[in-house]
Amino acid sequence: MNLQERFKQVRQHSIDICSNLQTEDYVVQPVVDVSPPKWHLGHTTWFWEEFVLKPNDENYEQFNPNYNYVFNSYYESAGTRVIRTDRGNLSRPSVEEIYQYRKHVDKGMLHFLKNNLSKALQDLIVLGLNHEEQHQELLATDIKYILGNNPLFPALYPEEKKSSLPAKKTWIHIDEGIYEIGFEGEGFCFDNELNRHKVYLNDYSICSELVTNKEYLEFINAGGYKNFIYWHMEGWEWVKANGINAPMYWHFIDGEWMNYTLNGLLPLDEHEPVCHVSFYEAYAYASWKGSRLPTEAEWEIAATKFNWGKRWEWTESAYLPYPGFSKAPGAIGEYNGKFMVSQKVLRGASDVTPPNHSRITYRNFFHPPLRWQYTGIRLAK
Amino acid sequence: MNLQERFKQVRQHSIDICSNLQTEDYVVQPVVDVSPPKWHLGHTTWFWEEFVLKPNDENYEQFNPNYNYVFNSYYESAGTRVIRTDRGNLSRPSVEEIYQYRKHVDKGMLHFLKNNLSKALQDLIVLGLNHEEQHQELLATDIKYILGNNPLFPALYPEEKKSSLPAKKTWIHIDEGIYEIGFEGEGFCFDNELNRHKVYLNDYSICSELVTNKEYLEFINAGGYKNFIYWHMEGWEWVKANGINAPMYWHFIDGEWMNYTLNGLLPLDEHEPVCHVSFYEAYAYASWKGSRLPTEAEWEIAATKFNWGKRWEWTESAYLPYPGFSKAPGAIGEYNGKFMVSQKVLRGASDVTPPNHSRITYRNFFHPPLRWQYTGIRLAK
Amino acid sequence: MNLQERFKQVRQHSIDICSNLQTEDYVVQPVVDVSPPKWHLGHTTWFWEEFVLKPNDENYEQFNPNYNYVFNSYYESAGTRVIRTDRGNLSRPSVEEIYQYRKHVDKGMLHFLKNNLSKALQDLIVLGLNHEEQHQELLATDIKYILGNNPLFPALYPEEKKSSLPAKKTWIHIDEGIYEIGFEGEGFCFDNELNRHKVYLNDYSICSELVTNKEYLEFINAGGYKNFIYWHMEGWEWVKANGINAPMYWHFIDGEWMNYTLNGLLPLDEHEPVCHVSFYEAYAYASWKGSRLPTEAEWEIAATKFNWGKRWEWTESAYLPYPGFSKAPGAIGEYNGKFMVSQKVLRGASDVTPPNHSRITYRNFFHPPLRWQYTGIRLAK
Amino acid sequence: MNLQERFKQVRQHSIDICSNLQTEDYVVQPVVDVSPPKWHLGHTTWFWEEFVLKPNDENYEQFNPNYNYVFNSYYESAGTRVIRTDRGNLSRPSVEEIYQYRKHVDKGMLHFLKNNLSKALQDLIVLGLNHEEQHQELLATDIKYILGNNPLFPALYPEEKKSSLPAKKTWIHIDEGIYEIGFEGEGFCFDNELNRHKVYLNDYSICSELVTNKEYLEFINAGGYKNFIYWHMEGWEWVKANGINAPMYWHFIDGEWMNYTLNGLLPLDEHEPVCHVSFYEAYAYASWKGSRLPTEAEWEIAATKFNWGKRWEWTESAYLPYPGFSKAPGAIGEYNGKFMVSQKVLRGASDVTPPNHSRITYRNFFHPPLRWQYTGIRLAK
Repeated sequence: MNLQERFKQVRQHSIDICSNLQTEDYVVQPVVDVSPPKWHLGHTTWFWEEFVLKPNDENYEQFNPNYNYVFNSYYESAGTRVIRTDRGNLSRPSVEEIYQYRKHVDKGMLHFLKNNLSKALQDLIVLGLNHEEQHQELLATDIKYILGNNPLFPALYPEEKKSSLPAKKTWIHIDEGIYEIGFEGEGFCFDNELNRHKVYLNDYSICSELVTNKEYLEFINAGGYKNFIYWHMEGWEWVKANGINAPMYWHFIDGEWMNYTLNGLLPLDEHEPVCHVSFYEAYAYASWKGSRLPTEAEWEIAATKFNWGKRWEWTESAYLPYPGFSKAPGAIGEYNGKFMVSQKVLRGASDVTPPNHSRITYRNFFHPPLRWQYTGIRLAK
Repeated sequence: MNLQERFKQVRQHSIDICSNLQTEDYVVQPVVDVSPPKWHLGHTTWFWEEFVLKPNDENYEQFNPNYNYVFNSYYESAGTRVIRTDRGNLSRPSVEEIYQYRKHVDKGMLHFLKNNLSKALQDLIVLGLNHEEQHQELLATDIKYILGNNPLFPALYPEEKKSSLPAKKTWIHIDEGIYEIGFEGEGFCFDNELNRHKVYLNDYSICSELVTNKEYLEFINAGGYKNFIYWHMEGWEWVKANGINAPMYWHFIDGEWMNYTLNGLLPLDEHEPVCHVSFYEAYAYASWKGSRLPTEAEWEIAATKFNWGKRWEWTESAYLPYPGFSKAPGAIGEYNGKFMVSQKVLRGASDVTPPNHSRITYRNFFHPPLRWQYTGIRLAK
Repeated sequence: MNLQERFKQVRQHSIDICSNLQTEDYVVQPVVDVSPPKWHLGHTTWFWEEFVLKPNDENYEQFNPNYNYVFNSYYESAGTRVIRTDRGNLSRPSVEEIYQYRKHVDKGMLHFLKNNLSKALQDLIVLGLNHEEQHQELLATDIKYILGNNPLFPALYPEEKKSSLPAKKTWIHIDEGIYEIGFEGEGFCFDNELNRHKVYLNDYSICSELVTNKEYLEFINAGGYKNFIYWHMEGWEWVKANGINAPMYWHFIDGEWMNYTLNGLLPLDEHEPVCHVSFYEAYAYASWKGSRLPTEAEWEIAATKFNWGKRWEWTESAYLPYPGFSKAPGAIGEYNGKFMVSQKVLRGASDVTPPNHSRITYRNFFHPPLRWQYTGIRLAK
Repeated sequence: MNLQERFKQVRQHSIDICSNLQTEDYVVQPVVDVSPPKWHLGHTTWFWEEFVLKPNDENYEQFNPNYNYVFNSYYESAGTRVIRTDRGNLSRPSVEEIYQYRKHVDKGMLHFLKNNLSKALQDLIVLGLNHEEQHQELLATDIKYILGNNPLFPALYPEEKKSSLPAKKTWIHIDEGIYEIGFEGEGFCFDNELNRHKVYLNDYSICSELVTNKEYLEFINAGGYKNFIYWHMEGWEWVKANGINAPMYWHFIDGEWMNYTLNGLLPLDEHEPVCHVSFYEAYAYASWKGSRLPTEAEWEIAATKFNWGKRWEWTESAYLPYPGFSKAPGAIGEYNGKFMVSQKVLRGASDVTPPNHSRITYRNFFHPPLRWQYTGIRLAK
């Protein structure tokens, strides 16, 4: 697919994700990690305007210079008239204005993409597409958070999804030895997937299936949230401080576990892989099982032998630079490196990862307590 | 005017205040003191449903039982399915749904008001009308906060208001003696205006005019925000902790003081009374002037001799019960008494107080640092 | 008594209060409102050095210029080498060094007091004595807090005090009319007791006795801490946020209410007046009793007719300037005026008020939630 | 050395560290990470009493059962009479009482050590000795913090240490390949040093010397604290939120950098290795130098080729379990594993690490912002 087609497709997908929203759903920001959908739609548009069109297309006319105050992630440099405010406090620009902004920039981009572009510009555009795809996953998870924390529990999609039968669980064994991980070959990857490098792995086994809701419920019923021996000290304090007793979106109502999904508040589906757990919970579950989480190298080496893609799978690995990692110069160079402290690596992809955005070498990362993403658990030993 | 007419008029006024809003403006809550306009519209409607229709009209059909979770001010008693959340996080019910809710309840109320109502019910309805009028002022001030803290500084009304010429300032003298304050006579008053009682006042003088923007600017230019001797210790800490250097909505841009109003960001109008100052600022200004703020009794006794109604005027008085004050039984009794600690009394009314809602005995009250209301300064000595 | 004698007596009393302390007890600061005893001993000494000796006695040699960093209440102006730190973090100067500092300054003062002093200097010295006496009460209450929050509950005084029998309770009636309150005559008073002025009081009755522990226990047992209708909203939030269920220093152990006193942890003495309650609790108790707290004017007018002095009695009055109040020029002028917002007036005195420091016109003041002082409750109606 | 001799030596060393303290220095806790010296002396003693003597010596008489409330690190299980309080708020038990407690337990232990002990008991005692040695380092760093944050900057040791000349810096090259890290052999190690395991390392070089104060000053003077490109995002926020502009204990006074050491506030010694930097600062310095920090495996493999032991050296590695790591059963098992999230590994030892407590495989760990330990920087590339 050429860049123009790919651009159209990616841009359309952002809009498709929002197709069932009401105007009000675009606006709110219930917690700091969640951005309003209209901000995602504006920010991804601003990226094309700011980094591609303004520096490279002298005929391009900026839509509204004040949008920089609103859609730039880096408020600090935004000048004298900026008011410090959270994204969820901004009623303007309106949703309608942002859709007009998207149209304006799309038109400019599609015109621009007809040119014969340098390799550097092509790379920048591919990065921009991946940037927008990352925001598409956030759009989906943020929408779920916004609706799932509303006491009316609105359903975005009316039809109920059918649950699959439980898969048979096996342990995949990998022999001790030297392996290689990291990206190699043609195509796009993020800087954090480089360099491909050798690692030494000890003998290990990894489970063919994700932990299910049913299995996780056993942990709850066995008092898993009430016994500190399964937890990191930091995780235990998190449990106590926040009164955590189940994954996010689980509600115990009238003696039954209900689960909010985009189809509404439904009885918990036991065969589905557990979702929306923090790293602390993933670790505690594994610890209770007498097992452990895989490292990211263990995951990557074994991942050809099992199905993945329904959940972002917590690994034991901290998010650190690979050997030979170097930042690109300029603003693009900040993309990943500056986050390489205090976060954990997640591998795989999820139900709401956009099409064509996953790779076996892809390194996602979040802080240990976060759980609004579609996170799950795979055991190793 | 009969109750039905008055009901229609008050209900319509709530909607009129919102007439120029975009849907998104109804949703956000930038700070805890500000509620989203759609919440005000829903909460005032819920009041009629909950306290009038449900207990007194057996034919009334509740619009949506879940709205209690959303529009009740007292979340605590709302049962098992409640999620703790701020009002500004709720995208649903939508604005459209809330307008339908208003129509539904209005229809029920207008039908109900055709009945021959007991005195107690009539009083309850008058209280409900005053309750809605109080929310109308909050609607106006909250809308200003929402738009005035948006970096795009949207104007709600396009036309610019004309500034009046400065009035001539005189000092009104009141002789020492026994006076009476508090409500008396026919008509509605809040419980906090009772009992009418005697007070002993010393000789004092009170200014015929409010402090203007020009006068307040002199305080700023004289270093008023930089010298602790004018301030309460608590006020001085507030200034330093929040970096306060001017009233709310003032912005110093390119060497000029600009002021956000509902007509947009405009050059400061020097002849207008200063607005959106905290009690701390009112006190410090008076202190710098070698003057002081009036007590609420001084204000009430002198108020027949000057014009008032453009600003809520900070007084030196703390918000305390009048002699003989007693709470009404039940939920209505909580209306005012439970706030009688740590707040200051404001007297008068403001540009956005709804028509027919002001009285010379009216006691408004806020915490000392708050300034999103239309608050101003009148000096005494 | 001449000034020299009075100076010696007051200075000695500060030391007497600490006579049973261990060195470690002088050092700690468990909460921000409590200062370490050694800080009180140093700060009161610094006052004499800074305001009397340094400006007025050219022969005086400063003990240690760095002590200004430590014993000045106003850290902000202390220059470049200051480290922001709480008083309880400072192990140096040592207790021994502070006692030497006291001796040094006492010697200087006693020498200085032999001079023929101007009226202004005499007034300053009397203010200094009252300043030190205020710190003596704080010394006593802070020591109680330090020991009473130690899990070993050490007793400062071994002997147990004998409880008096319950007094007979009567209601003292005061007729409506004009009265005068505030200080008048010879002798010292604080600026906040001026001017003496007329007030108009309605008919009221005030109780001859303070509320006892036994009576307060009835409030607890009747669910007083569990029913919000007795409380200010702010008070109710304080109860919930802090898990308050009894006065400070009360502990329910093995089915019995114990009370920490300076004689150790002892069974609650039912006949003693309740102590260490916040304004919120005083108000809630009165509200539960169908009664109220007196205003400070009501208290002052009636106080000649009952015994007072065991507890600082919460009044309904906010701490505000009297008519005609004016601040003295200079640092001394800051003494009281800058605190006149958000506090409540307490009248009377307490078990640990130093001798000769109480007056019927004395206005003490604290924030509503504070309860480490010897605060109690007297009802009015 | 036999266990009895070793016990005596270790216990004496704890006391020696405190030999120059004044009583007040034992008491305070300026920040939560710092414990009062008297708490360290009591807690290490309580360890012997609680885990060795009470369960194993039926003749042992407990010194004071209430000490469990004070010296147990785990307040939660301490029963009904516990008051939640910080360690620095406790004036009792006094320093003298704690020294008596030490004598009492030492006597019990020396008597107990004469017995023929099982292997398990011997291991427990060796663990206890290592536990006390860990607290000895904390004792030293906490004392420095207590005195170094006192505005009087007291010197603990009068004599000034002589600075060594700068060492010649070389880069040590290590070839790509498989290496082994982790503890092996006789003697004590912590559980986190196991299992010894293979790692694959790429070619790298590591510097023979630590970064000096002079070199670090160049980073400061080059604006290192003012340019976010050198920092992790989290580190940059830490810099801004805390106003960081130099290592802890550095003070810029009258145009000169001064450094607080236990010899007092002295001009910065340029040849000394930089000390008291956070991980964020170590990373930013390396980033500014176009270099990086070593991983812990790189450090361990190269450490036979350079001198180490003056500073705890920040590594890029997160603190995670080694392959095959397993927790011991019981309370001892909590020793290290529960901290294995969100922390960074430090390797080496420091000026105040007790004798015989360092190993090439030793894994120390702290959170990225902490800097009250003797932390330093070694570069790799």
